[in-house]
Amino acid sequence: MAANDVYVYDFAEGNKDMADLLGGKGANLSEMTNLGLPVPPGFTITTEACRAYLATGREPDGLREEVDAHLRALEEARGKRLGDAADPLLVSVRSGARFSMPGMMETVLNVGLNDASVAGLAAQAGGDERFAWDSYRRLIQMFGKTVCDVPSEEFEHALDDAKRARNTTNDLDLDAADLRALVDTYKKLFAKHTGREFPQDAREQMDLAILAVFQSWNAERAILYRRQERIPADLGTAVNVVAMVFGNLGPDSGTGVAFTRDPASGHQGIYGDYLANAQGEDVVAGIRNTIPLQELERLDKRSYDELLGIMSKLESHYLDLCDIEFTIEQGKLWMLQTRVGKRTAAAAFIIAGQLVDEGLIDLDEAVMRVNGEQLGQLMFPRFDLSGDPKPLARGVGASPGAAVGKAVFGAPRAAELARAGEQVILVRRETNPDDLAGMIAAQGILTSRGGKTSHAAVVARGMGKTCVSGADALEVDTRNGKFTVDGTVIREGDVISIDGTTGKVYVGAVPVQPSEVVRYFEGDVAGDQEGADPLVSAVHRIMSHADSLRQLRVRTNADTGQDAARARRFGAEGIGLCRTEHMFLGDRRELVERLILARTDGERQDALDALLPLQRADFVEIFEAMDGLPVTVRLIDPPLHEFLPPLEELAVSVAVARERGEDAAKAEALLAAVRRMHEQNPMLGLRGVRLGLVIPGLFAMQVRAIAEAAAECAGRGGNPLPEIMVPLVGAVQELETVRAEAERIVADAGAGAVSIGTMIEVPRAALTSGQIAEAAEFFSFGTNDLTQMAWGFSRDDVEGAFFWRYIELGIFGISPFESLDRDGVGRLVRIAADEGRAARPDLKLGVCGEHGGDPESVHFFHEVGLDYVSCSPFRVPIARLEAGRAAVETAPSAAAG
Amino acid sequence: MAANDVYVYDFAEGNKDMADLLGGKGANLSEMTNLGLPVPPGFTITTEACRAYLATGREPDGLREEVDAHLRALEEARGKRLGDAADPLLVSVRSGARFSMPGMMETVLNVGLNDASVAGLAAQAGGDERFAWDSYRRLIQMFGKTVCDVPSEEFEHALDDAKRARNTTNDLDLDAADLRALVDTYKKLFAKHTGREFPQDAREQMDLAILAVFQSWNAERAILYRRQERIPADLGTAVNVVAMVFGNLGPDSGTGVAFTRDPASGHQGIYGDYLANAQGEDVVAGIRNTIPLQELERLDKRSYDELLGIMSKLESHYLDLCDIEFTIEQGKLWMLQTRVGKRTAAAAFIIAGQLVDEGLIDLDEAVMRVNGEQLGQLMFPRFDLSGDPKPLARGVGASPGAAVGKAVFGAPRAAELARAGEQVILVRRETNPDDLAGMIAAQGILTSRGGKTSHAAVVARGMGKTCVSGADALEVDTRNGKFTVDGTVIREGDVISIDGTTGKVYVGAVPVQPSEVVRYFEGDVAGDQEGADPLVSAVHRIMSHADSLRQLRVRTNADTGQDAARARRFGAEGIGLCRTEHMFLGDRRELVERLILARTDGERQDALDALLPLQRADFVEIFEAMDGLPVTVRLIDPPLHEFLPPLEELAVSVAVARERGEDAAKAEALLAAVRRMHEQNPMLGLRGVRLGLVIPGLFAMQVRAIAEAAAECAGRGGNPLPEIMVPLVGAVQELETVRAEAERIVADAGAGAVSIGTMIEVPRAALTSGQIAEAAEFFSFGTNDLTQMAWGFSRDDVEGAFFWRYIELGIFGISPFESLDRDGVGRLVRIAADEGRAARPDLKLGVCGEHGGDPESVHFFHEVGLDYVSCSPFRVPIARLEAGRAAVETAPSAAAG
Repeated sequence: MAANDVYVYDFAEGNKDMADLLGGKGANLSEMTNLGLPVPPGFTITTEACRAYLATGREPDGLREEVDAHLRALEEARGKRLGDAADPLLVSVRSGARFSMPGMMETVLNVGLNDASVAGLAAQAGGDERFAWDSYRRLIQMFGKTVCDVPSEEFEHALDDAKRARNTTNDLDLDAADLRALVDTYKKLFAKHTGREFPQDAREQMDLAILAVFQSWNAERAILYRRQERIPADLGTAVNVVAMVFGNLGPDSGTGVAFTRDPASGHQGIYGDYLANAQGEDVVAGIRNTIPLQELERLDKRSYDELLGIMSKLESHYLDLCDIEFTIEQGKLWMLQTRVGKRTAAAAFIIAGQLVDEGLIDLDEAVMRVNGEQLGQLMFPRFDLSGDPKPLARGVGASPGAAVGKAVFGAPRAAELARAGEQVILVRRETNPDDLAGMIAAQGILTSRGGKTSHAAVVARGMGKTCVSGADALEVDTRNGKFTVDGTVIREGDVISIDGTTGKVYVGAVPVQPSEVVRYFEGDVAGDQEGADPLVSAVHRIMSHADSLRQLRVRTNADTGQDAARARRFGAEGIGLCRTEHMFLGDRRELVERLILARTDGERQDALDALLPLQRADFVEIFEAMDGLPVTVRLIDPPLHEFLPPLEELAVSVAVARERGEDAAKAEALLAAVRRMHEQNPMLGLRGVRLGLVIPGLFAMQVRAIAEAAAECAGRGGNPLPEIMVPLVGAVQELETVRAEAERIVADAGAGAVSIGTMIEVPRAALTSGQIAEAAEFFSFGTNDLTQMAWGFSRDDVEGAFFWRYIELGIFGISPFESLDRDGVGRLVRIAADEGRAARPDLKLGVCGEHGGDPESVHFFHEVGLDYVSCSPFRVPIARLEAGRAAVETAPSAAAG
Repeated sequence: MAANDVYVYDFAEGNKDMADLLGGKGANLSEMTNLGLPVPPGFTITTEACRAYLATGREPDGLREEVDAHLRALEEARGKRLGDAADPLLVSVRSGARFSMPGMMETVLNVGLNDASVAGLAAQAGGDERFAWDSYRRLIQMFGKTVCDVPSEEFEHALDDAKRARNTTNDLDLDAADLRALVDTYKKLFAKHTGREFPQDAREQMDLAILAVFQSWNAERAILYRRQERIPADLGTAVNVVAMVFGNLGPDSGTGVAFTRDPASGHQGIYGDYLANAQGEDVVAGIRNTIPLQELERLDKRSYDELLGIMSKLESHYLDLCDIEFTIEQGKLWMLQTRVGKRTAAAAFIIAGQLVDEGLIDLDEAVMRVNGEQLGQLMFPRFDLSGDPKPLARGVGASPGAAVGKAVFGAPRAAELARAGEQVILVRRETNPDDLAGMIAAQGILTSRGGKTSHAAVVARGMGKTCVSGADALEVDTRNGKFTVDGTVIREGDVISIDGTTGKVYVGAVPVQPSEVVRYFEGDVAGDQEGADPLVSAVHRIMSHADSLRQLRVRTNADTGQDAARARRFGAEGIGLCRTEHMFLGDRRELVERLILARTDGERQDALDALLPLQRADFVEIFEAMDGLPVTVRLIDPPLHEFLPPLEELAVSVAVARERGEDAAKAEALLAAVRRMHEQNPMLGLRGVRLGLVIPGLFAMQVRAIAEAAAECAGRGGNPLPEIMVPLVGAVQELETVRAEAERIVADAGAGAVSIGTMIEVPRAALTSGQIAEAAEFFSFGTNDLTQMAWGFSRDDVEGAFFWRYIELGIFGISPFESLDRDGVGRLVRIAADEGRAARPDLKLGVCGEHGGDPESVHFFHEVGLDYVSCSPFRVPIARLEAGRAAVETAPSAAAG
C-alpha cells in the first residue's frame, strides 16, 4: 500500500476480470462501458483503498487527490459541477464487494443536493420543482439511514403522514410544496438523531458516503453473513461513484430490472419488471406496482428495442444468463448494473444445455455451470404446485426437501406421535439440544426464528431432514400448542406442508411428486430422446459428459442386494463399503446374543457356525447385484454390546422386578453381561479389528462367508470381485495378524485371489501409513471416524449439542462431518495417500466416509489423486458430477486459462 | 548375503563391539582372547549365517567350508582331531544372541564323543574311565534334550534310578560301570524318542547342534520373550564352537561363577560360587552344594590369584561390574564367559558412584549407568526384611511395590471389603476384565499364572499397583476361597505380603519401611555428608550431576498447595498442569449442580459468583507454594455431567420410588437433566474449550479467579507466575475467542501480564499447529488424550479389556499410555513442535501427559527439543534423571563416540 498505488479507476479503465480490485459491480460497470453500452460516467474506489482504511482507520495517502482528479473528469464529462447551486452534478455512491453481501451499506442516490442546488436541479428538469424536492427528500432519507444510522421508519412515518394529509397512498400525489415541507421534517429528524445539521457541502456528503461504505464492511450483519458463506473477512469493498440519471423525471422516464432468461425455469424470453416515473428504490420498496417488462414496448419502443439488443449482447459477451438494472431518463436508456444472474437448480441445468446448443459454451463449460448441490436439490421429491396452493408464510429454506405432517409443538409429543405411526412436523420458536429426539422423529422442522446457521438448520442438514427456519410471520405459542399467522391459527394435529428449498409453508397436505431427475436415473424416463423433458435432457447430457471427463471412479455404500442394484442404476461402479454389522440384526440377534454371552469356546463356535451360512447368503446376493464390479466388504465394526439391550433400561427392569418380588434371574444374568461389556466411550473401545483379534473365530467366520460366497457365484459363471476391508486398524501389526489368517481361509475356500486392505480411519493409521501399506492392497479413508478422532468429536453428541454455536462463532463455516476439513483431516488423508503410495505404488485409494458424496470434498479427493469415492446410492450422481467438474478444474487448459 | 560373506570368526578375529554379528557371548570371548586371558580356542558362526539359514531354510553357501577351515585350525591348536577315536577333540556348541534370551537352546558340551572315542577320552584323562563315561552320558543327555527335544526328565529319572541302585544321592558315587550302563539306557531313550540311533559321527553331532541353535531362535518361548522385551524378531543368534575344558577331571578341577562386585548391594569384594570336580551344568542343576568362591584360595591358590587378577583386569577393561564363568582343569584356569553383570537398582547407583571414585568412569558415564526405572524402584516403600521372613512362594515381579493385606479371591468381595476400610490382596489364578473393580480396590494383585505381560501384570502396571504374577507354586481354589502352597493353606482373610519387585510372597504382614531415597528427596536425610548411606550418597551425586546436564526443565502436575510444595521439594521447577475440575468437587458440588441445572442466565451467574471466591482461594494457595515459578492452570476440562449422579443409578432409584408409590418429583427432575446431558462418548463430547464457548461466564469466572489470586499474591510481595491453558483446542478460532475474553478480564483485574496458551491434545491441533501458534504463547502436549485420539483408544475401556492381548500378539511391546508411541503420537508431537516454533519462534513447549514421567518418553521429548516435561510429584526425580541421561546421549561427544 505504497503512496503511489492507484486507488481509483475510471469505468473506462477497468474490466470484468478485475472484480477483486473493483468489486463485482464496478468491474461490470467498466465492462459495459468498454462494450460501448450506455453507462453513466463514473469511477470506482478500489477494495485496496478500503482495506488500507480499515487497517489504519484513516483514508490512505493519495486517495483524496485521486478522487479529486476523477471527480473533475466526471464534472467535465457531464458539464456540471458537484455542489454548483445553479447546475449541480449529482452522483450516486454505491458499495460493491467481490461477493454481494447483505448487511453492507448499498446506495445513496442524489448526492450533491442541498438547500441551494435543489433549485438548480429543478431548473435542469425544466422547472420541475416537485422532482427536485422529491430528489432532495430521497437524499436525506438514504443518507440519514445508511450513512448516519437514522432509523428508517421515522422517515417512512413522516412520508405516510404527508400522504395521509393529502388523503392518498400514492407518493405521486404529493406536490412540490408537500415535498418541500417533508424535506424540512426530514432535516429535523436528521438533526435530532445525529446531533448535527444535514451537511450542505456536496463534497462532504460524497466523502462521508464513501467512508460509510468502507465502514459498512464490518457491519455486524455483514460479518455474520461472511462467516456463514465462508467469505474471507479481509477482502474489503469497493465504492462506485456514478453520475445520477433519473427515472423519475416524468412519464417518459422509469426504471426496471430484467433477466436475459427465466431464472426459475431457464426458458428463453423477456423476463423483468418496469416502473414508470420512479427511481430504483421504489421498485424494491413496492410502493407502486410494477408492470411486466414486455409492456415497455408499448410505452417506449425505441428504448425497449435498445434494451433487447443490449441484453442479447450481454448474454453473448458473458456467455450466461445476466440480470440487469436500467433506468430510462426522458427516453434515454442507461445501464446501471449487470451481473451473471442467480437461478434455480433446474434453470442452471437447462440454461447450460441451451448455451451449448447456441454454441456459446462447450460441454466442459456446461459441466462447470452446474454443481452437485443443485443436482441434489433436483433429486428431492417436490411439492406439486399445479393446484397453485397459497403459502401461509415464508422462511429460510434451511434444509431442502418437501415434508408434510401434523404440526406438533414439543419434542416428546413429536416422538410419541411418530412412534404411533404419525407423520409430524416439529414447530418451535427455535430448537435446542433438548429437541433432538423430536427432530429425529419428525418429517421436518419449522421454526419462527434463526437463519441458515440456527441450531435447527444445522442439525436438520446434518440429518438430511427438511427444515424451514426463521419464518418470522409465525407467532408460535408452544404452551398452548398452536401458531398464528395473520389470524390463521394452526393447532397441534393440523396438517401443514413445508418446502425446505423455497422456505414456503402451506396449510394442509400439498401433494408431493417424485423427482423427474430421479426417475431419469432410475431409467423410468429417457434423457436422450426427442421431446424429452428439457431438464432431464440437460441433466443427461451434462452427466454423460461429466462421466467422460472424471478421473475418480464412483462407488456406493450398500449393505443389501437391493441397495446395490439401485446404486448401480445410479451409476455406481462397485461397492466401496458393504457394512456387515447390519447383517447381525433382525432375527439373527438371538445368535449374536449367544455369541456375545458364550462362556466356552464351544458355545461361541456354535453361534459362529450358525451365522456362517446366513452371512454367506447375504454376500451371494450382493456379489450378484454387483457382478463384475468390485465389492469391498468391511469386517464387523461396531461394539458387540450394541446388540444387547440398553444398560439403563435393563437395570430399571431388574430393579422393578426385584421390588415386585418377581423372578429376575435371567434378566440379572443379562444385566451382568451388559454391564461387563459396558464402555465409557464405545466409539474408542472394543470394536473393529480389536474385536477380531480378541474374539476367536469371528473374523474367520466372516472371511469364510465372503470366500465361499465368491466361490459359489463364480461357480455359477458370475464374476464376483470381493475385497476384504479390515476396520479401525491403527498399527500394521493388527493388519498383518488378520491378513495371515484371512489368506489361509481364502486359499482354503478356493475362492481365487481376494485383495485385502484396510480402512484409514484412526489418525495413527494415517500417520504410519507407510508401514501399513506394506500389508494392505488398498486404503479406504473412513473420513467420518477420521473426523471424529482428529477433532475429538463424537458425532452423536456434538452436532446437536454445540455445532450451531461453533458455526455462529465462525469456528467453522460448515460442519466438518458435512464437508471435509482440509487443514486437519485432509492433511491426514494427504499424508496417508502420499506415504502409502510411496511404500506401495499400486496401492488402491478410496474414500467411504459420507464425504464421498459431498461436492467440496469430492474436489479435494480428486486433487489428492484418490482412485474412487464411495457414497450412499442417492449421492452417486452428485459425486459423478462433481468428479467431472473437478477434472475440468484441474485440466491443463483450465490451469492455463 | 552374498556367497563371499564371512560367516565364521576365530576368537582372535573379533572384539566386544561386534556383538551384533557375533552375539554377546562370542564378542566377549573374542575380547578376552585378545586381552590375553586364558580362553579355550574356538570360533563363532555369525548371526548373519543364522539369518540366512532362517530366511531360506538351508545352510548358506560357503558356511560349511568356513566351518571346515576353522575346525581344522582348532584341531591344529589343540593337537587333536574331532572324532578321532584315540585322541578326540571335544567341543561345546553354545548359542549366543545379541541379547540373552531364555527359551533358546543354550549349550551342548562334549560334542565329538562316541562309542569309540570314549576310550580315547579316558586315555587323555590318564585312564579315568569314569570321567569318560560320565562325559559321554552328559553329551547324550544334553544333545538329546536341546537338539532333539527328548524330554529331559526321562534322563533325570534314569540317573536317579542308577543312584538309587547304589543307594546314594551323589552322582560322584556312581562308578565307571554304572555310567557305562547309564549310557546304554540313555541311548535307548534317545532312540525311542527320536526314531534313530544316537549319531556316532562327531562332525554330524556338531553340525546338528549348530542347526539346532539356529532353529531355536524361533522357539515359542524365545518369540514370546522377544515380544515382551521388545527385541527385534530378525536379529538371529550366533553359535560358538569352543574346545572343551573339563572341570570334572578330579579334585584339582572345578567350575564356578563370579561377580566382580556384589550385584545386590554393589559392595566391592569377592562374590561367587565354586564347585570342585564338576561341569558347569552341575552348578545350575544344584546337584551338589557349591562353596563360596573365597574358599578356592585354600584349594588352589595359584588359580585363585590368577582369577582375582583377571577379574580386576576385566573390571578396568569393561569399566563396570562383570560376571564370569570359569573352569579349572587340573589346576589350569580357563575363562568360559564374561559380560557386564546385571544388578539391583540400589547396586546400580552405588557401583556407578564407586567407579567414579575409582577414577574408572566420569560422572556423565555414571548418569548413563543408572536409569529412571531403577530410581523409581528405589522410591517405592520396601519390606523390612531384617526379621528374615521366609517367602512362601515366588512369582514374577510384575509391578513393583510392597503390598500387605487380607487375601480375597473374587473381585466383588475385594471391592466390598475395601469399601469397609480393609486392605486386601486380590488372589486369582489369572485375571480378566471382570476383575477390574477388584483390582482397583485391592492393595495388590497376586496370580498363579501368567508372566510380565499377563492381564494382571499389564493392568496393574497401568494402575501403579503392586502385582506378583505367575506364582505357580500356588494352587488357587477360588470356589472355596483359599490357596495352597506345599500344604500351607491361606484362606480368605488371612494376611499376606507381596513384593512386586522381587516377586516374593510372604505369610503375614511383613513390616514396610519407607524408601531412604524418598526420605532424601523429602530432605529428611542428607546426601552430601560424610557417613551418609552409600545409596543416598550415590543418588545425590548422580542426581546433582543429571540436573547440571539436562536441557529439559521438569515441572509437576499438582492441583493443591500441598502437592505443589512436595513436588517442589522433589525438584519441580513449576507446575505444568494444575487441573481445576478437582476444585469443583466436595462441598462445592452443590454449587456446580446449580450451575449445570440453571435455567436462566441469572441462576447460572449466581452459581458462578458463588464459585469465584472459592476458586480464587485455591489459586492463592498454589501460587504461594510455587512462588517465583510458573504455574500453568488449565481451565475446566471434563464434561459437566461428571458432577451429576450416574444415569443408571438415578434411573433405578426413580423407578423403584415410583413402584413404591413414593414421591420422586425431585429425583425425576434431576434424572431429566442427567439424561439431557448424557453423552454416548463423553471423551469426545462437550468438554474443554467447548464448554467454555457454550456456557457463558464459566471460563470468565475461572480467568478472573486466576487473575485476582495473582494480584492478591503480588500485593503481598509474592511473585506469582500464572499461565492460563485452554484445553481441547482443535482450531485456532476457539483459542482466539477465549483469548480475547481472557485478555479483557486479566487487564481488568490488574494482574499484570499472564501468558495464554493451549493444550495440544486433539490430533487436529497438532496438524494445524502453525495456525494455532499464532494465538498461543505456549503449547503443552496432553499426550494422554493425544494417544487416546490418535489410536482411537478410550483408556478407561481398552487397557483392561484387550491390551494384554495386544501385548501378547506383539502389536505393541508396552501400552502406548505408559510409553509414548513415537511413530504415531510422537509424529504429531514433532509436527506441532516444528510448525509451532516456525510460526512463533519463542513458543514455549512442554508436556503434561503422564508420559512426562516415563523414562523412554522423556528421551523423546528431549530429542524433539521441548522446554519442559511435567509429571506427578513422585515422578519428578525420575524425569530429572532421564532428562540428564538424554542430554548425555545427544551430547556432541557421545555422538562422535
